[in-house]
Amino acid sequence: MSSTLGKNLEISIFGESHGNAVGVVINGLPSGEYVDKNLINQYLKKRATGKDKTMTARVEADEVQFLSGVYNDYTTGTPLTMVIYNVGQHSKDYSNIATIARPSHADYSGFVRYKGFNDIRGGGHFSGRLTTPIVMAGSLCMAILKNKGIDICANIIEIGSVKGQRLGNRLDKNTFDILREKQIQAIANEDKMREEILTARENLDSVGGRIECVVTGIKAGVGSPMFDGVENNIAKAIFGIPAIKGIEFGEECLLKGSVYNDSYKMDGGKPVTVTNHDGGINGGITNGMPIVFAVKVKPTPSIARCQDTIDFKKMSDTTIEIKGRHDPCVVARAVPCVECVTAIAILDMVMESEIYG
Amino acid sequence: MSSTLGKNLEISIFGESHGNAVGVVINGLPSGEYVDKNLINQYLKKRATGKDKTMTARVEADEVQFLSGVYNDYTTGTPLTMVIYNVGQHSKDYSNIATIARPSHADYSGFVRYKGFNDIRGGGHFSGRLTTPIVMAGSLCMAILKNKGIDICANIIEIGSVKGQRLGNRLDKNTFDILREKQIQAIANEDKMREEILTARENLDSVGGRIECVVTGIKAGVGSPMFDGVENNIAKAIFGIPAIKGIEFGEECLLKGSVYNDSYKMDGGKPVTVTNHDGGINGGITNGMPIVFAVKVKPTPSIARCQDTIDFKKMSDTTIEIKGRHDPCVVARAVPCVECVTAIAILDMVMESEIYG
Amino acid sequence: MSSTLGKNLEISIFGESHGNAVGVVINGLPSGEYVDKNLINQYLKKRATGKDKTMTARVEADEVQFLSGVYNDYTTGTPLTMVIYNVGQHSKDYSNIATIARPSHADYSGFVRYKGFNDIRGGGHFSGRLTTPIVMAGSLCMAILKNKGIDICANIIEIGSVKGQRLGNRLDKNTFDILREKQIQAIANEDKMREEILTARENLDSVGGRIECVVTGIKAGVGSPMFDGVENNIAKAIFGIPAIKGIEFGEECLLKGSVYNDSYKMDGGKPVTVTNHDGGINGGITNGMPIVFAVKVKPTPSIARCQDTIDFKKMSDTTIEIKGRHDPCVVARAVPCVECVTAIAILDMVMESEIYG
Amino acid sequence: MSSTLGKNLEISIFGESHGNAVGVVINGLPSGEYVDKNLINQYLKKRATGKDKTMTARVEADEVQFLSGVYNDYTTGTPLTMVIYNVGQHSKDYSNIATIARPSHADYSGFVRYKGFNDIRGGGHFSGRLTTPIVMAGSLCMAILKNKGIDICANIIEIGSVKGQRLGNRLDKNTFDILREKQIQAIANEDKMREEILTARENLDSVGGRIECVVTGIKAGVGSPMFDGVENNIAKAIFGIPAIKGIEFGEECLLKGSVYNDSYKMDGGKPVTVTNHDGGINGGITNGMPIVFAVKVKPTPSIARCQDTIDFKKMSDTTIEIKGRHDPCVVARAVPCVECVTAIAILDMVMESEIYG
Repeated sequence: MSSTLGKNLEISIFGESHGNAVGVVINGLPSGEYVDKNLINQYLKKRATGKDKTMTARVEADEVQFLSGVYNDYTTGTPLTMVIYNVGQHSKDYSNIATIARPSHADYSGFVRYKGFNDIRGGGHFSGRLTTPIVMAGSLCMAILKNKGIDICANIIEIGSVKGQRLGNRLDKNTFDILREKQIQAIANEDKMREEILTARENLDSVGGRIECVVTGIKAGVGSPMFDGVENNIAKAIFGIPAIKGIEFGEECLLKGSVYNDSYKMDGGKPVTVTNHDGGINGGITNGMPIVFAVKVKPTPSIARCQDTIDFKKMSDTTIEIKGRHDPCVVARAVPCVECVTAIAILDMVMESEIYG
Repeated sequence: MSSTLGKNLEISIFGESHGNAVGVVINGLPSGEYVDKNLINQYLKKRATGKDKTMTARVEADEVQFLSGVYNDYTTGTPLTMVIYNVGQHSKDYSNIATIARPSHADYSGFVRYKGFNDIRGGGHFSGRLTTPIVMAGSLCMAILKNKGIDICANIIEIGSVKGQRLGNRLDKNTFDILREKQIQAIANEDKMREEILTARENLDSVGGRIECVVTGIKAGVGSPMFDGVENNIAKAIFGIPAIKGIEFGEECLLKGSVYNDSYKMDGGKPVTVTNHDGGINGGITNGMPIVFAVKVKPTPSIARCQDTIDFKKMSDTTIEIKGRHDPCVVARAVPCVECVTAIAILDMVMESEIYG
Repeated sequence: MSSTLGKNLEISIFGESHGNAVGVVINGLPSGEYVDKNLINQYLKKRATGKDKTMTARVEADEVQFLSGVYNDYTTGTPLTMVIYNVGQHSKDYSNIATIARPSHADYSGFVRYKGFNDIRGGGHFSGRLTTPIVMAGSLCMAILKNKGIDICANIIEIGSVKGQRLGNRLDKNTFDILREKQIQAIANEDKMREEILTARENLDSVGGRIECVVTGIKAGVGSPMFDGVENNIAKAIFGIPAIKGIEFGEECLLKGSVYNDSYKMDGGKPVTVTNHDGGINGGITNGMPIVFAVKVKPTPSIARCQDTIDFKKMSDTTIEIKGRHDPCVVARAVPCVECVTAIAILDMVMESEIYG
Repeated sequence: MSSTLGKNLEISIFGESHGNAVGVVINGLPSGEYVDKNLINQYLKKRATGKDKTMTARVEADEVQFLSGVYNDYTTGTPLTMVIYNVGQHSKDYSNIATIARPSHADYSGFVRYKGFNDIRGGGHFSGRLTTPIVMAGSLCMAILKNKGIDICANIIEIGSVKGQRLGNRLDKNTFDILREKQIQAIANEDKMREEILTARENLDSVGGRIECVVTGIKAGVGSPMFDGVENNIAKAIFGIPAIKGIEFGEECLLKGSVYNDSYKMDGGKPVTVTNHDGGINGGITNGMPIVFAVKVKPTPSIARCQDTIDFKKMSDTTIEIKGRHDPCVVARAVPCVECVTAIAILDMVMESEIYG
């Protein structure tokens, strides 16, 4: 079902960029979990705009309201609903492009899908704005996972032509804390990445990039074979973030088998692998090593140049110049989205493992 | 649910490598579709082994039996069940490694997941053998899609260090027919690819690769936003094939926005895009262009060298030498699996589009 | 998943009796459907309290807010969210019974299920208040069904010891209109039923009853065999209404086969059955006759008498006198709930029939 | 999805009365459960025909084959598949009625649903034969439940005009053992019930009845509110049995509240209720008391009299005389089906309770 995700924990996301609100219902949450509003706000702030010139100036003053499912600051176990009421949208910025397809946006595909009835203001339900409820739901899941000793952290490894570094073995809390302080959450080369973004902005252009994400502290035996594996479920969740076009588990699989294979050894009475090319997953199931994957983020489709396109109502050629305020790069803002949607997928699978564990 | 896939069309896969049978129940199939056994056998043959030295010598004489859902050669619309009874397995080949983890296999993760009760002979339910029912179900879906003008074809673009070519605009039936005749289904450099595989075999090693897959003839407006998009559903399906570790939609997204964006233009009264960097999908929904994606296949984990590992029952270090017959490269055999699992995902979404279309 | 229902159309209900709001997200709605707020309010009014002495004096001034999914009064096709903010709850009425189980309420079972973290004020998520979002979602579905020529109407056939009449062949719009005007929506004996309720109130007691529900205008061939049949889906939906303990399809099945069997005959070129003992359903699939079923509603568990019970925190015997304002009979208020939840189940199945129809 | 049931435990049923086989795939079973073939055969025998004159003479020599999911007599945890190959069907018995609707059968509704492509021999997928895989899957679940201290037993309380008795407090193992020995599994009046059936047979007629089913040993706190409650899930499962037209939880709910309400009291340090009118369920969740419900079984639609009907291909009036061998009453054979489908629903919910328990 569109806009819902999960089996034991189901999130149902709603809202439009310029509608009354965006929000999420979370069904199946364990009862008695502390609702850490600070953590939620921290992740929301990370996703928010207007912090500097690498981002759009549009300010999102996002304050979460809880409509249900929280009682005396703890989850009740019944459906939990969070909303953020939309304020201060500039609908006029978009009014001239109602039936003109912005290239590489969902204007045309959405128009066909919904026969012209979808809310097109600001992209409507297709807007990056809809990652806000993902972050709300995911940061709540993150807090629950942390109580189970599981942590999730992302690291930008590529923006435009600038490469960063993989985390490799640097998966300790200290590294994560340092990373999380950074606006461009990269373990290396964030200054060059910032420059790359500003140059793109000056050139009325945009750039994409690549984000690595790691899940630490997850026990072996989580996940199921074939279509309900860790890879399947993370991938299904990750592609819910607009602009993500690729995902790869492990660091790189195009190696010779003799190099790729992750040898096991005993370490302190516990099986570990010497390398982690499989990204912690064999046969869809965790092997006790950290889950590692990387996602590719395409360049922001909204650029300030004149572009060839069509008017899909008139069915005729035309051009478009996208006005308004847009990010020249959404990679940094995608970081909390990647972390949070991963938290949702992981918590769902960890809950499932209670059944067979 | 492990080993099941789909919403409007649900496949439920069962079996173990050395058990009585492997098979699939397909639920939700339209009634009155011709069951093209030739097409099914064609795809099965493509997946089968023993055709030459690039593959394992283990012969799989796979004959499909229909247990239900077919009446006078047409689908009844009620659950359709296909099985292949297993014959000629060499269980002894695997008997010495029952509690010794083959590196980068699911032996250890599966042991933890199923508390030691899973059938470990030949990998059991984790075996590549379980792609047989994927191919059975998918080739049946493929036949139904073809009647709707939709075709799916894969093309190997990388094996080890050998690069092939992307299909680009060569998406005509003629190209597909030529491709399908090839044992190494690559539009270019299949000889070098074959050499690469044979060299790996000689070196007691293995190689992986990359497969491009295209879906032509699909109309605009199929799919849904966020978590039920075309990317989400194809990705969830694709990672059901063991050995696949990555997927990327479009040809490459790490470009500047001004280059990446797919401009629209009218072409014969129909909107098309000049480029197809988005791989035919915007906001999770088809835009009328071909769906294009590529998957990464890891090197076969079974290699004939001695490898360090553990005995996970004794919880002690040991080594393993995997005997038996194994592919030095599964990329070519993964081709029909990729095509067929894609067919399942696409037919499901096309059926869904009947509701909102 | 608790509080969600449906496959092609998924509703996700949230809220607590004394929390901030109750509401519903509807996912999968067709786009371009007119959102008939009048019809929604009409059904809500029918469900509301305080209309006369047969009901609790607690006034629910329910005004629906649309948070998403509606644009220019038409459904967008993306998730539609409706909420009613709670006002004027009297939490104090319930404060003394926090850990004392009201007999035949969900206080104790809910306490165990949610380990004491659920919101117990006014029954929380278990409150009859949660039928409000069912009515909101269902009345919207009802409007869509009416455009397809399908109508749904309920008729009270029993309250306490007073019997009404089955509708039988009186399934015309005129009869439905007359029925819908009545506060006790019964085709016969509503005055005696009212008396029965008032007598129960005077005796500090409560009564239950039976409601018949019919679905007219539905074509043959809707539904699927075994577990996805019309009976399965309606039953699953119906038991979402608190207080309903039984459902029976057709008027009565404990007859001899020679009497029970519904003979077919041609009528105006169309197959009809002479009787309709099967309630319009054979093998889980509609046969073109009206769907007919009846549900049993238990007596309101909240009565003003002193009752024996336990304190489930102290694990000790005690007694309870339930204060506050309560209905001596919820049958009349259950009528729109039954109609509306049926509308949700039927629309889902009718949408599904677009795939195979 | 038609013919599938369950969330944590999914069964997928396939087959046709006169096809190659009937069977079931069970997905999500816990690993390491002993597969008790004796128990499975016991329940199958109970469901089988030909035992005496109250039943059809058609012999079903049902031998279960395990195609997957069992290794050394224990469940592997991966999909478990059981089939029974069909032998000895008399297809000719049905050949003359291919397009003539048997009254109160699914011939016509199935024809419309599947556009005439469904296998109509012997009712095809709609046949009572399809309860065999329900019994196979359910008896396996029953064995697992028994290990958890949960038992399920049914008791016929009505056949035609003969009433039996409710079990009431007689819920001990001894009573169940005695009941299970009986061919007409009724705690009282089975002789009169047998007579009633034989009389119906002599009159070329058929009779229905009512079956009570109880689930003992289930802890409090299982189930979820609204649409995922115990009542919803049992009802959805139960209506998967052909011929069942009604279900009611508890013994009878049309009582005064002061009589109906189940008072709590402490009993040996454990909360119990003095009565059990709610059938062990409050707010969709178990309260620790036995689950009690009753189902209504309609009279066998196949009777040997001439009946009015239509030819739905010719769309013309006609008559039918159903030949072949048929049960004058399926109530006794429905008993193991009711018990077994309940076992499936209960095990699924008990597994779910591992997550929140």
